[in-house]
Amino acid sequence: MDHILYLYNTLSHTKEKFEPFHPPLVGLYVCGPTVYGDPHLGHARPAITFDLLYRYLTHLGFKVRYVRNITDVGHLEQDLDEGEDKIARQARIEKMEPMEVVQYYMNRYHDTMRKLNVLPPNIEPLASGHIIEQQELVKKLIDNGYAYESNGSVYFDVEKYNNKNHYGKLSGRKTEDLLAASRELEKQSDKRNPLDFALWKKAEPQHIMRWPSPWSDGFPGWHVECSVMSQKYLGNRFDIHGGGMDLLFPHHECEIAQTVASQGTESVKYWMHNNMVTLNGKKMGKSLGNSITLEEFITGHHKLLSNAYSPMTIRFFMLQAHYRSTLDFSNEALQAAAKGLDRLMEGFKNIDKIIPAKKSTINPDRIKKELYDAMNDDLNSPIAISHLFDGIRDINSVVSGNESLNSSDLVKIKKIYHTFIFDILGLQEEKDDAKGKGLLSDLINLLLMIRIDARKRKDFETADRIRDELSRLGVEVRDVKDGYEWKIN
Amino acid sequence: MDHILYLYNTLSHTKEKFEPFHPPLVGLYVCGPTVYGDPHLGHARPAITFDLLYRYLTHLGFKVRYVRNITDVGHLEQDLDEGEDKIARQARIEKMEPMEVVQYYMNRYHDTMRKLNVLPPNIEPLASGHIIEQQELVKKLIDNGYAYESNGSVYFDVEKYNNKNHYGKLSGRKTEDLLAASRELEKQSDKRNPLDFALWKKAEPQHIMRWPSPWSDGFPGWHVECSVMSQKYLGNRFDIHGGGMDLLFPHHECEIAQTVASQGTESVKYWMHNNMVTLNGKKMGKSLGNSITLEEFITGHHKLLSNAYSPMTIRFFMLQAHYRSTLDFSNEALQAAAKGLDRLMEGFKNIDKIIPAKKSTINPDRIKKELYDAMNDDLNSPIAISHLFDGIRDINSVVSGNESLNSSDLVKIKKIYHTFIFDILGLQEEKDDAKGKGLLSDLINLLLMIRIDARKRKDFETADRIRDELSRLGVEVRDVKDGYEWKIN
Repeated sequence: MDHILYLYNTLSHTKEKFEPFHPPLVGLYVCGPTVYGDPHLGHARPAITFDLLYRYLTHLGFKVRYVRNITDVGHLEQDLDEGEDKIARQARIEKMEPMEVVQYYMNRYHDTMRKLNVLPPNIEPLASGHIIEQQELVKKLIDNGYAYESNGSVYFDVEKYNNKNHYGKLSGRKTEDLLAASRELEKQSDKRNPLDFALWKKAEPQHIMRWPSPWSDGFPGWHVECSVMSQKYLGNRFDIHGGGMDLLFPHHECEIAQTVASQGTESVKYWMHNNMVTLNGKKMGKSLGNSITLEEFITGHHKLLSNAYSPMTIRFFMLQAHYRSTLDFSNEALQAAAKGLDRLMEGFKNIDKIIPAKKSTINPDRIKKELYDAMNDDLNSPIAISHLFDGIRDINSVVSGNESLNSSDLVKIKKIYHTFIFDILGLQEEKDDAKGKGLLSDLINLLLMIRIDARKRKDFETADRIRDELSRLGVEVRDVKDGYEWKIN
Repeated sequence: MDHILYLYNTLSHTKEKFEPFHPPLVGLYVCGPTVYGDPHLGHARPAITFDLLYRYLTHLGFKVRYVRNITDVGHLEQDLDEGEDKIARQARIEKMEPMEVVQYYMNRYHDTMRKLNVLPPNIEPLASGHIIEQQELVKKLIDNGYAYESNGSVYFDVEKYNNKNHYGKLSGRKTEDLLAASRELEKQSDKRNPLDFALWKKAEPQHIMRWPSPWSDGFPGWHVECSVMSQKYLGNRFDIHGGGMDLLFPHHECEIAQTVASQGTESVKYWMHNNMVTLNGKKMGKSLGNSITLEEFITGHHKLLSNAYSPMTIRFFMLQAHYRSTLDFSNEALQAAAKGLDRLMEGFKNIDKIIPAKKSTINPDRIKKELYDAMNDDLNSPIAISHLFDGIRDINSVVSGNESLNSSDLVKIKKIYHTFIFDILGLQEEKDDAKGKGLLSDLINLLLMIRIDARKRKDFETADRIRDELSRLGVEVRDVKDGYEWKIN
């Protein structure tokens, strides 16, 4: 089968035929997390979206080099050019060395991704590990006249760049409109122009994360790392750059400006962006009080959740929406996803119950074509899943004797389902059945509620016993401000 | 209990009382793996040794910052100053980008360490992520007159250093002897003196891993990274530096020289080294054909192995030898360890079978003291384990009615065993396929035991709550003569 894959390119606003620069090689860069807090749904969506892409490209025979970075320096509060570094701030709050914060939350991120069956990227570079490379880019931008030093910091000259190029081409913005908005948002500091963005920031005396440079002891601006690390590991021109839609502006816009201003041409052929996640129809956010971590979904321990949801339920739920649609989480929707996933897995198991007949009344090639057509149409996983369900109906009809399959078609059907469910969609059998896992979480939560009550009654013997026994059983309990967290080791 | 911990300091050749610079804080730096191949027994031993130290110090109440590095650049073949970079070589063989090799084997290392229940360090810095810091140290050594540039590379001047200091003090070597040996081993290249070692190496044109520097486009010498990263995250003086005995010379010797030459004083108070691992009495090595990876031990898939050995068997086996003794692996020894571990875990479970008596004929404080005495004597885990086995004999005597324990001593014994087996030795119940199911049962039994105790205390509210909640979750409880029965509906 000759597959022609179409991918939606944010830059052209159209689905384009995917033709990598050097087939079968594919270079894929995706913006990873800033590691200063526990991973939440907003981290799961890009991870699962580009995991699906990585798996599908690999399945089609491409040799993909997948690079996904870790932002551990330079990402300031509210994505601005002034204010505290997100990691330094967390380090201050938790009284840790910034790199301890990075390590802790990076480990938590990896643990959660593993549960979601998200494959690790081939290279996962840290921003703090590429300071020299970032300084080299800044030097080049100064040499090319697109950056200027001011008070030890270095800024990108957006106005100059915009004379010959369009700053805002990816997100469809105009500098006039941006100017009007930005003046109020940000104090001007050392910039010539409010739209200019930081390439290198001079560190305040109390700032821990700092490196020597020709301009000051300081740290790189947030946008520099991705230009530098994508180029270092994928070359001056590479195939796909992905990330969440929230990164379109300013992050990816700045990346394009940096690249064009340094090397004269763009580096990315296809820009891909996943859409956002909402919760009960509302934007999620810590300040809005409706931010739920992935760990909380998995354990069910959050006041907005009526159940624990298994990692595969979360993954399946995400794949049931197209990556460019917004996705609304609610208990009802997740419960439906859990049931759907059960039905899919049961249906797959039913294939083994089929006794081959002489003739087939069902054509496996039809469903195979439908599945590939859906995936080739900009990774339309919800359509692919609906075809999988259609096929399950057919399979059940064969099991009940109303349809039939001959032995070669039976082998074919099983192979198709196996490929799509496990290899491409990346689902897996839950280690315990969904019921067992939910019950497991519910029992642990019950024990911990009894422990809290015991402590209130000063019955420390019972409280300690519960913690000790759980620890012995491999359930690690961590007391936190409003209660507890736990995980099964 | 006031614990006085003694640790063997390689530098003084004696066990010294452990007194950190700033109690309760402890700074611990351990040399981690060079990630260009699958982890083998030689990686497991330092990881488990210093995991034991980390766990014990934490248990004693110290707040440990544990830094363990990843070497991903600068480690040349045969630990020499000439030749190919180990990672670059592997990248050439596997036709990958060097950082892909690093990521792949680093992930494999982490996966295996997780299986061995080795806790992750608080910070795990990469050598390639600290190039600027390493260049700063090289500059300082040049400024202080202890390093010289030659043909774009920079070398440490051992002769000059040795005039006022003793190069070889840690490993007990003399430069005269070293000179005699080294002349034949290594071609002199750009060095003034064959004992000099590389701080910065000019990269050959085909060398991929390279960074700009004042001396050349190149890469740091292997020994520089540990001096730099330990100091960056633990300060100019810190408590413990650990590693395998194979790193004593030249690696740690060079670290000391670099530190003293740059800051005038040593930084490390206690140097600790684990001994080596042999296989059937022979040194292990790829070239000797007897190198077995940890994954091969776990799967049993290697011609020298008669079984698969679980990660906890490997861990327990290592802990049954003192970390400063050599350790010989053989099928017989591993099978014995597996049996011993079973016996220990069974014995622990037998504690739950004990019905408290009025009087104790066994003194839990004695075994507690023995266990701590063993650990306080330079982490003597084999002695501690033998005391655990002695205690298991006592426990079994109580179970069979030949000895007795009152209820408070019973709680004490259980706590001691729990602490030493799980928290300090870091053993855990093996996870098998039935684990989820087993855990479910364990949790339900735990809840029902707590319910029985609550009823004994006439805390009917808690007792009824447990029964009601379990019923709501679909767990039907039936009280019978000697306790209870349950089933999941």
